[in-house]
Amino acid sequence: MPKKVRIALDAMGGDVGPSVVIPGAAISLTRHPDTEFLLFGDRGVIDPQLAKHPALKAVASVIHTDVAVSMHDKPSQALRRGRKTSSMWLAIDAVKKGDADVAVSAGNTGALMAMARFCLRTLPGVDSPAIAAVWPTVRGDSVVLDLGATIGGDAHHLVTLAMLGSAMASVLFDLPRPTVGLLNIGVEEIKGREEVREAAELLRAMNLPQLEYTGFVEGDGIGRGAADVIVAEGFSGNIALKAAEGTARQISEFLREALSRRWLSKLGYLLAKPAFKALRDKLDPSKSNGGVLLGLNGVVVKSHGGTDADGFAYAVEVGYEMAKYDLLNKINQMLKLDGGTLVQASAAQEAVS
Amino acid sequence: MPKKVRIALDAMGGDVGPSVVIPGAAISLTRHPDTEFLLFGDRGVIDPQLAKHPALKAVASVIHTDVAVSMHDKPSQALRRGRKTSSMWLAIDAVKKGDADVAVSAGNTGALMAMARFCLRTLPGVDSPAIAAVWPTVRGDSVVLDLGATIGGDAHHLVTLAMLGSAMASVLFDLPRPTVGLLNIGVEEIKGREEVREAAELLRAMNLPQLEYTGFVEGDGIGRGAADVIVAEGFSGNIALKAAEGTARQISEFLREALSRRWLSKLGYLLAKPAFKALRDKLDPSKSNGGVLLGLNGVVVKSHGGTDADGFAYAVEVGYEMAKYDLLNKINQMLKLDGGTLVQASAAQEAVS
Repeated sequence: MPKKVRIALDAMGGDVGPSVVIPGAAISLTRHPDTEFLLFGDRGVIDPQLAKHPALKAVASVIHTDVAVSMHDKPSQALRRGRKTSSMWLAIDAVKKGDADVAVSAGNTGALMAMARFCLRTLPGVDSPAIAAVWPTVRGDSVVLDLGATIGGDAHHLVTLAMLGSAMASVLFDLPRPTVGLLNIGVEEIKGREEVREAAELLRAMNLPQLEYTGFVEGDGIGRGAADVIVAEGFSGNIALKAAEGTARQISEFLREALSRRWLSKLGYLLAKPAFKALRDKLDPSKSNGGVLLGLNGVVVKSHGGTDADGFAYAVEVGYEMAKYDLLNKINQMLKLDGGTLVQASAAQEAVS
Repeated sequence: MPKKVRIALDAMGGDVGPSVVIPGAAISLTRHPDTEFLLFGDRGVIDPQLAKHPALKAVASVIHTDVAVSMHDKPSQALRRGRKTSSMWLAIDAVKKGDADVAVSAGNTGALMAMARFCLRTLPGVDSPAIAAVWPTVRGDSVVLDLGATIGGDAHHLVTLAMLGSAMASVLFDLPRPTVGLLNIGVEEIKGREEVREAAELLRAMNLPQLEYTGFVEGDGIGRGAADVIVAEGFSGNIALKAAEGTARQISEFLREALSRRWLSKLGYLLAKPAFKALRDKLDPSKSNGGVLLGLNGVVVKSHGGTDADGFAYAVEVGYEMAKYDLLNKINQMLKLDGGTLVQASAAQEAVS
């Protein structure tokens, strides 16, 4: 019998907790029956939800704790109050102890990052973690990172991000050698930040077997699907993500308004409704729900706090695929590869400069 | 008789040159008859175009030059080949000499920035220039800067951008005290780059009479119209702009595809066509055409290189309004104000820290 994927869930995470987390896990289970769940949180709230989902109940263990990190806790508060006791910490700790293959939480991002980093520590060779997510493009999906875990960083940090992101893309999209682009600005005379240019030289010189560096990508190249993996430091990555989300929301608001203004437009909208539904599905944030914390000794997936059961199910499935297809191992291979080639790369760089 | 607004045009700028620039100027003239034009470029190409627009011809002077900056010239090449001779340089130089109130070019951004900076020099108190543009939001228009003129910069640079941008917003939107937000990332535990936090403290301490600092704005706050002026250093500002443009393009592609798939959707599209047209107009890049180079001893407006006559007309009108309502003077007042208050602000900051 093949090994089951063991997923630790912070059942109290998110705006509403178990009433989204449990049904979400149940949905994911129907799609991936080879899953087992560890549910961390208040048994008094979890059990009634679990009673509604017998199939999930059959493969789930509940580990009770009274302590939950609130959505408003600062990371320092969360660590002080919730270390070793909160549902969030315990879910992450299950990964550390080897009881689970991956942890998923819809709890607050700052607390989750702080706890994951504190509990799991960064991988050897990784200076600081990253958040990666799947970005829908006109050409399919891309992995974009870092979406805000680490601000700033030198060329080596960007190269590490390229390796982490391409390991994730190869797992998620089943690509032997994903293409990688560095996010940069398009004004030609300024070729962007120095560390971005340096990272480009490094990636080119390294010519890694597991990723294909293809060059700079401007902000509008992300949505065009210019590369399988788009690498940015956390500040600009977060700005890009949020600017894109804001624009999508703005356009749908304009569209709704425009379509409701005249009865002919309304009729047109009714006739074209399936098309709009298809569009909405394509842009549905819940379908790209699941930011992955990369660079740690274990995989942790962050779901949107305000998501519904369908959205949470997608986050669980991202975790499932990461564990099933052995993301951590791929990342480790990639980093070891780096250990050998970075030296050569520096030498190559010196030779050309 | 009130003073006319004198606009210098780089007639050779853009992908096609005079066949867009001249009709564009003619359109703008119908809306602002109190304009005079100086047209720099190849008389052999300009004159036939001008012959088609007698009203424009009556208020335009043509200054011939054989030299034009190409769209592919690097800034250094453009300066070497085109300084003192190219249509782009001469248009900018007309502003410097006081022959024109503003220069408009659809030529290549890098060359334009380099020439404008070289010819006009930065204003006293301004370390480096910025590009600002009008960004359509759900709440109306906002001014966003810097879109890529200067990469990086300290807190003082961001404060200067706030002053430049709010002077532009007060001129364009007729606001006595525009609200200003600093672009930052939303992940709470990391309050963003240090210089952004410092700039926030400075702006709060200064409490300038000409702008109201309202706090950090995340990437999705731009489209929501979170503030009249959004300030970012050039790298992240450019990333935000391009990511938003890319998303808009991506959604319209998805929408077109979704609407053309079934005949019922197609019919719906036909009925709702005016609504789609209204939406397109709202998002039409030509309507927000006209990036303004701020922080120099003169106002220069950059039009998209690939724009049509309507789009170029918008860029000319941006220049018109800047000149008519005395942007440069407002900026200078603002900077003088700064000269007095920055010292107080630093003192105030020391007192609280």
